[in-house]
Amino acid sequence: VADPDGLRSISHSLLEAIKTHPGEQVLQKLGTPNFVMLLNTGGILPTRNFTRSQFEGAERISGETLEETLSLGNEGCYACAVRCKRKVSSKERYEVSAEYGGPEYETLASLGSCLGVDDLEAIAKGNELCNRYTLDTISTGMCIAFAMECFEKGLISLEDTEGLDLTFGNADAMVEMIERIAFRRGLGDLLAEGVKRAAEKLGGEAKKYALHVKGQELPLHDPRGKFGVGLSFAVSPTGADHIESAHDPFFQQIGPGLESVSPLGILEPVSALEAGPQKIRLFRHTQLIWNLWNCLGICNFIAQPPWALSLNEVVNTVRCVTGWNTSLFELMKVSDRGMAMARIFNLREGFGRKEDTWPERLFEPLPDGPNKGQTFTKEDLEKGKDLYYEMMGWDRENGKPTTGKLIELNLEWLL
Amino acid sequence: VADPDGLRSISHSLLEAIKTHPGEQVLQKLGTPNFVMLLNTGGILPTRNFTRSQFEGAERISGETLEETLSLGNEGCYACAVRCKRKVSSKERYEVSAEYGGPEYETLASLGSCLGVDDLEAIAKGNELCNRYTLDTISTGMCIAFAMECFEKGLISLEDTEGLDLTFGNADAMVEMIERIAFRRGLGDLLAEGVKRAAEKLGGEAKKYALHVKGQELPLHDPRGKFGVGLSFAVSPTGADHIESAHDPFFQQIGPGLESVSPLGILEPVSALEAGPQKIRLFRHTQLIWNLWNCLGICNFIAQPPWALSLNEVVNTVRCVTGWNTSLFELMKVSDRGMAMARIFNLREGFGRKEDTWPERLFEPLPDGPNKGQTFTKEDLEKGKDLYYEMMGWDRENGKPTTGKLIELNLEWLL
Repeated sequence: VADPDGLRSISHSLLEAIKTHPGEQVLQKLGTPNFVMLLNTGGILPTRNFTRSQFEGAERISGETLEETLSLGNEGCYACAVRCKRKVSSKERYEVSAEYGGPEYETLASLGSCLGVDDLEAIAKGNELCNRYTLDTISTGMCIAFAMECFEKGLISLEDTEGLDLTFGNADAMVEMIERIAFRRGLGDLLAEGVKRAAEKLGGEAKKYALHVKGQELPLHDPRGKFGVGLSFAVSPTGADHIESAHDPFFQQIGPGLESVSPLGILEPVSALEAGPQKIRLFRHTQLIWNLWNCLGICNFIAQPPWALSLNEVVNTVRCVTGWNTSLFELMKVSDRGMAMARIFNLREGFGRKEDTWPERLFEPLPDGPNKGQTFTKEDLEKGKDLYYEMMGWDRENGKPTTGKLIELNLEWLL
Repeated sequence: VADPDGLRSISHSLLEAIKTHPGEQVLQKLGTPNFVMLLNTGGILPTRNFTRSQFEGAERISGETLEETLSLGNEGCYACAVRCKRKVSSKERYEVSAEYGGPEYETLASLGSCLGVDDLEAIAKGNELCNRYTLDTISTGMCIAFAMECFEKGLISLEDTEGLDLTFGNADAMVEMIERIAFRRGLGDLLAEGVKRAAEKLGGEAKKYALHVKGQELPLHDPRGKFGVGLSFAVSPTGADHIESAHDPFFQQIGPGLESVSPLGILEPVSALEAGPQKIRLFRHTQLIWNLWNCLGICNFIAQPPWALSLNEVVNTVRCVTGWNTSLFELMKVSDRGMAMARIFNLREGFGRKEDTWPERLFEPLPDGPNKGQTFTKEDLEKGKDLYYEMMGWDRENGKPTTGKLIELNLEWLL
């Protein structure tokens, strides 16, 4: 560390900032599970494989309920002052070990609402199993959601499931399917391939229920209620991803979220439903910021937007740690460089403009909630991509970084 | 002022920085006239209308000679701690008033070396007259240089000059021509139009001696020895301009110049003669920085690169004055926005890629000095423009900002 005193001073002021930051306080108290009720109220809680966007059992799998029932309180990563992680255990219908942490929001939705499951204990067990077997809870849940919809539509039979009733809402079936996926037993062997390949093997209508982008299963945010998140899903180099960019609702009104991005020159509120130029601009800037967290190895729950560590303090932190005379300008270029490199890699591997898309279901109207009926069209998405590519210095044809852009980023070797 | 104490603290540390900054100290002692010998030694001192790049009379018009002869010491703008301005007077062959300031470097070259004139007193008088008549000394000198070359080539006769001997080196003729231009008398009426129109009216070969870009006369730096400055001349929205971007020599080796641009991510030295991708990248970044001084109203002799006020202190200054939570990233966008707006304006007025060029003479080999024979080709310039446009988010066809770029810069209204 080039400047230990400087770093210590940032650390102390961050500690104070966390204590008074409403969002960090909620994270400390409830963790990400607090998002269950927020998304359900907003009508963007993926339910039964995205056929609904509100879940009648939301309260039973909410952060508040988790806290009142299975939770043993919070834990944290090393030296973290937020400590958003939950510790849970149970010895009722399922024995849930406290060793594997509690379910995050994504898991409560992927193993819960998206399967129509409102059994918190089963979800906690499913979470434990995924963590034990090193399965991603989002992809695992979405594979089971896919299977449940196929089961409902008759594309997967009781014979295929060896008698397991894959009806939406069957909590025990969810737990059992995780075991089968982990050990590639029976139908689990098919689902372990992910929804894209599974649908290809099943054939026919199955494709309609395989919700993924570039083979990556959708995370648990219905983008029909927040276009920036939708654009994330389409253009993220790793396929559908919910931590590609700060989510639209933070910037809908004058307030701390919007104020935190003023160093980026973003000064005006933008509606979550906006799909036009101002949204693309907001998305591009906040995507570069969140990608910077990936480059720096910073947690997604600590820095602005929308958390406690300001962009300027991030820059100062890098200066203190490295001793480099850096700036937000240079760090944004670092992030931009990462995006360009990932893009070039993807293009080489055959992922271009055509693959920056949504599964068909996301072009249908939002089924529930305050924005019920809200629809983004294919034209909205294609126009958004045009602008996004151009803002990134990529061509419109295939999103290929231009020669000038690569050289601006000192990536001449990628020409 | 939002934060007077913060601003005062920056001001105090700047004062200290100026005291130990070698470049600022030379500016204080000699002002910009110190560049005469630097450019002459480097073989890039425009001489006799850019037909030579070293001047045998350089020492007689140097900053050192000025200081020993006509100078009454330095003056400064309000509250400036550098005070680079000269005060001069004379009562010999010419009566030179101390009211109008001494000649800057550009004037020593435009009314001196570029006319083959080595008479410091006459130059000081010419400077006084230009300032009194509000004539730009660069354009005025270059108009006279044009006329002198036309006179030498027989395109302007003694009859045209009403008997005035316009031979290169005639100091009195220079002073007289300034009077004639100011009052549009005789040949002065033609030259008052600038070299572009004057050459069009004279016809024939005259065009070859009219050194301008977009109708703006060349400033007194031979770009054949520094390609970035050459690119400035070509792409500056206001025509050939020497304060469009920090000059190449500051970044040729590891040292304070290069270190000052590390917040821009520029970390490797680039030769002044380099015309390839690394030069275009350096130019584009430092152009945005120098254009930021225009946006902020900051003097070209105070901030990095290469002067005393660091880029981070510039950001802090803006924060203290305005109270805005800004960053170098946002300020670079402000500058980028200015460039895009100027470009759109110029395109509307008929200035596009074709007008981003050099007068033919600059494609000829550098005539004198350590880099004698050095040549930049039309291909060098065209390739440089391709890359520069792309880095700016402008198309290659005509340097038109793309839709995505305009929206990134919040310039939707210019679509």
